[in-house]
Amino acid sequence: MPSPHDSLYALIAETGGARLADQLRFVMEIDRLKGIVRQTPLIDGSRNETDAEHTWHLATMAVILAEFAGPAVDMTRAIRMILIHDIVEIDAGDTFLYVDAAARAAQTAREQQAADRLFGLLPGEQGAALRALWEEFEAHESADARFARTMDRLQPFLHNVFTDGIGWRKHGVTAGAVRTRMAVIADGSPDLHRLVERLIAESVARGYLEEE
Amino acid sequence: MPSPHDSLYALIAETGGARLADQLRFVMEIDRLKGIVRQTPLIDGSRNETDAEHTWHLATMAVILAEFAGPAVDMTRAIRMILIHDIVEIDAGDTFLYVDAAARAAQTAREQQAADRLFGLLPGEQGAALRALWEEFEAHESADARFARTMDRLQPFLHNVFTDGIGWRKHGVTAGAVRTRMAVIADGSPDLHRLVERLIAESVARGYLEEE
Repeated sequence: MPSPHDSLYALIAETGGARLADQLRFVMEIDRLKGIVRQTPLIDGSRNETDAEHTWHLATMAVILAEFAGPAVDMTRAIRMILIHDIVEIDAGDTFLYVDAAARAAQTAREQQAADRLFGLLPGEQGAALRALWEEFEAHESADARFARTMDRLQPFLHNVFTDGIGWRKHGVTAGAVRTRMAVIADGSPDLHRLVERLIAESVARGYLEEE
Repeated sequence: MPSPHDSLYALIAETGGARLADQLRFVMEIDRLKGIVRQTPLIDGSRNETDAEHTWHLATMAVILAEFAGPAVDMTRAIRMILIHDIVEIDAGDTFLYVDAAARAAQTAREQQAADRLFGLLPGEQGAALRALWEEFEAHESADARFARTMDRLQPFLHNVFTDGIGWRKHGVTAGAVRTRMAVIADGSPDLHRLVERLIAESVARGYLEEE
């Protein structure tokens, strides 16, 4: 289906080349990440954050907390990975961290299709490189991916703690479920994982989270 | 004034040290960038974007358009600069690009105070380093700052073009004013500047922008 913007992209291709037109098509398309609302409340509790806001927050946290990454982490790659880690949610939507395995499997299939479409907008080798970076994030095996995932888990966790657990209470999340989902933080940073464990205990003590 | 979160920060300091507590105080405080609404509409026109969303978009654009940066640009520094370039607006608010010189001078004074407070939350040397990076962005003299500013000008410009100029028409912005504000893009990338000039002409032809 032709987009009402096709004539603009044709003009861009004429002026700056087809490669730039493809790059800007991607840049304009990912604007929709600002329309994906997450389950995480803003710290002031006024509304939930969007995926684009979440992503900015993670990338900036990575800058601030870089010293918690091990020496094997290439921070430039980790930040690049963070910047694109959620764009598949433009097509696939956001899934709350505490859903069951079946829901997560369905989400994975939707995300693969989304990756085909979105990274496919870019010039071939650039799209392939970013797709590989996203796959690396999803596999969470490399040091860079583990640190990126540590930020991705830590940020909504801190939002829950600093909003008196409104998100947790709304969804009936238990301390055990949080411990399980946060265990991977230890792969990215044992120090940050120790802090998370302490804050889970405190959240239970304060009634933000139910021990089960 | 004590914050209701002081006891959480005390716990963080006890578990992970005062340095980490200061870092997380900054991380939580900058969440407010998600509450600063800009003049730029989303591409779907549904609402205006927030500063946090804008910043994510610029950082990702820098990744995609890295080949338009000259060889002198250190992309890691440029992206880091982009990630923190607007946080002073948490205290100082957003100023529309097309205001007069007096309004811009008042904004600059507010931003310096904001920088004192916000970067001052971080551990001393880390806050000083990020403050210096922000000052470098503001001075727009280094190659990294020029490329960061190119992204900062190009993104809202593209949003205006791809939303049929709703922002421009609402504020009665003329083609001459856009040309003047976009001239600095040439310092970051002559190729992107050529494209911008072509799109300004097209926007006038389409009635998105008035020639004056």
